[in-house]
Amino acid sequence: MFQLLHKDKSSKARLGRLTTAHGVIDTPVFMPVGTQGTVKALSNSELKDAGAEIILGNAYHLYLRPGLDIIGKAGGLHKFMGWDRPILTDSGGYQVFSLAKLRKLTDNGAEFASHIDGSRHILTPERVIDIQQALGSDIMMTFDECVHYPAAKDYVEQSLRLTTGWARRSKEHLEKSDAESRQLLFGIVQGSTYPDLRKRAVKELLDIGFDGYAIGGVSVGEPRDLLYETAGYTAALLPEDKPRYLMGVGMPQDILEAIALGCDMFDCVVPTRNGRNGQAFTLNGDIQLRNAAYKEDFTAIDDTCGCYTCRTHTRSYIRHLFNTEELLGLRLVSLHNIHFYVKLIELSRKAIADGRFASFKDEFRTKYNKENL
Amino acid sequence: MFQLLHKDKSSKARLGRLTTAHGVIDTPVFMPVGTQGTVKALSNSELKDAGAEIILGNAYHLYLRPGLDIIGKAGGLHKFMGWDRPILTDSGGYQVFSLAKLRKLTDNGAEFASHIDGSRHILTPERVIDIQQALGSDIMMTFDECVHYPAAKDYVEQSLRLTTGWARRSKEHLEKSDAESRQLLFGIVQGSTYPDLRKRAVKELLDIGFDGYAIGGVSVGEPRDLLYETAGYTAALLPEDKPRYLMGVGMPQDILEAIALGCDMFDCVVPTRNGRNGQAFTLNGDIQLRNAAYKEDFTAIDDTCGCYTCRTHTRSYIRHLFNTEELLGLRLVSLHNIHFYVKLIELSRKAIADGRFASFKDEFRTKYNKENL
Repeated sequence: MFQLLHKDKSSKARLGRLTTAHGVIDTPVFMPVGTQGTVKALSNSELKDAGAEIILGNAYHLYLRPGLDIIGKAGGLHKFMGWDRPILTDSGGYQVFSLAKLRKLTDNGAEFASHIDGSRHILTPERVIDIQQALGSDIMMTFDECVHYPAAKDYVEQSLRLTTGWARRSKEHLEKSDAESRQLLFGIVQGSTYPDLRKRAVKELLDIGFDGYAIGGVSVGEPRDLLYETAGYTAALLPEDKPRYLMGVGMPQDILEAIALGCDMFDCVVPTRNGRNGQAFTLNGDIQLRNAAYKEDFTAIDDTCGCYTCRTHTRSYIRHLFNTEELLGLRLVSLHNIHFYVKLIELSRKAIADGRFASFKDEFRTKYNKENL
Repeated sequence: MFQLLHKDKSSKARLGRLTTAHGVIDTPVFMPVGTQGTVKALSNSELKDAGAEIILGNAYHLYLRPGLDIIGKAGGLHKFMGWDRPILTDSGGYQVFSLAKLRKLTDNGAEFASHIDGSRHILTPERVIDIQQALGSDIMMTFDECVHYPAAKDYVEQSLRLTTGWARRSKEHLEKSDAESRQLLFGIVQGSTYPDLRKRAVKELLDIGFDGYAIGGVSVGEPRDLLYETAGYTAALLPEDKPRYLMGVGMPQDILEAIALGCDMFDCVVPTRNGRNGQAFTLNGDIQLRNAAYKEDFTAIDDTCGCYTCRTHTRSYIRHLFNTEELLGLRLVSLHNIHFYVKLIELSRKAIADGRFASFKDEFRTKYNKENL
């Protein structure tokens, strides 16, 4: 299912290959976020052209809208949204604890009111597996409590007991419900910024045994060095022969740091969310296209970029689109940013293969930050 | 410049070919509206894939934003927006009299306050030619007063004197300013719903002499039969060897009626504006994709349609996108609708070539309206 292909000489970065029901994914990999069954503002064909190998969906959102009944009748999420490459579905734990109004949290599960219409729902770890089976995603995530930063240690410890218990029930439920499933199940390591709790979480999850391991509870408000630190020691605890998914990270430099620490999979809303606000990423730093500085800038966002946006349009034109609130502006920058993220990871893979990832990462950071100052 | 290629046996429909600086256009033709230098929600490559031969820009809007300075420095509107096929620019007369706050109207021109920031501007017929020359559109329109319906005859008569005077000055200014121009200039026939005034307008414009003639002041609130009547008798007054552009029309059946009356060129915001509201056009009538009826409808908008939307997505999925306010929904339906309009005109050209346009039009109307009931 996961093959470790190569280890970088200069860092803990690794090349791998993850086989799923809808195709093979080369790791490290960036996964664009398609929360509601669509990567915001982009079409499937644009995502494919940008080189996206796998996208994310969200169990919480899709369970509420359009609902499992409709997606089930469509033949699963792939058919519903017309996407034939792999999909990873997030369990919705993060959304239940951040977006919905939580009513009651017990060992059994979470009772909450929908952020859309206030309707009451109960999610249990078993139910979340059922939901993801109905969605038919290639990679399912266990239901967990994502603790924000900062959090008191005793709270985290208590939360971890819940998350680990839920992880065990998820695995058991999956084994009972469908032994033939080709859907993979990843466990999520929580434990906030406490190394001993992270260590305990890893041990307990390894005892249960999953197809891959996610590092959750990061990028939730902690300073950047603490993110790297947590990702670093947690990744080091995880088995070599399983994929490691660092959830919700991050800015381009964060992803490169995490690759160097041995993480394989990444998702983040930044390329599309920031794209919709006019922020475009380039190897020379990011630029805010709304700025007056680009009024008469008739160059592409990045002259060296091969995406549709950069092949077709100038900064001046895109600024005009944002200025006049034209939808094409959001599209063009979102598309460029996804392309940028995917290509950055492709370049990373090349650097790992060449045994020079550490210097690749440092050169990127120097160039990127210099222009941003 | 314009070749009349073929006349239908069953109606006044005609096939023609219009040669412009950026390519040849087959008529009848539908021109998607790109008011601010972008056809709302769509990319240039999507427009080309849909078969759009020419698009519209708007002198009023582009003059205000981004301004001629920027478009001039970009090398004209084509280069600014990255579109290499023909562009027709509307003079902005309609916008000055509908969108802006008009301050003063004289024989010389119109003084108005921008709808964006209230800034004061004066447009004269000469200035509007200058603007369109800076934009570098393939087809320019004269500055006119577009009278709404209903309008008292003496008001229309007085307005017509203004419009005709402005048309004459536009032509004279163009001849003085750039004899080598490859930009075409169309005159606009006004006269509201008064046949004698339309007749006088045509006569006066023909005396001046233009590359093509537009029928303006239609689709401004009059009943549908009065639109057809006005388009019919005005088209009949126009010379055979010049293209006839019916401005701002319209719904699919309106365009087919107008083709049967001898009109050649059409523009309308309906396919994109209605598309952004979830209304999709098909040969079997239009459908409102927000409707609950499509909740579990896993067919394409139109199974016989070859557009990206219909090849990739179901009604159920598109309804979900509108329901969750995802931008892809607007995109997909706008794209389908532009494709529908362009293909409907292509089918019309085929029917004209075969001498059966009248029955083609009637069959379309019967099928389209039946399903809409």
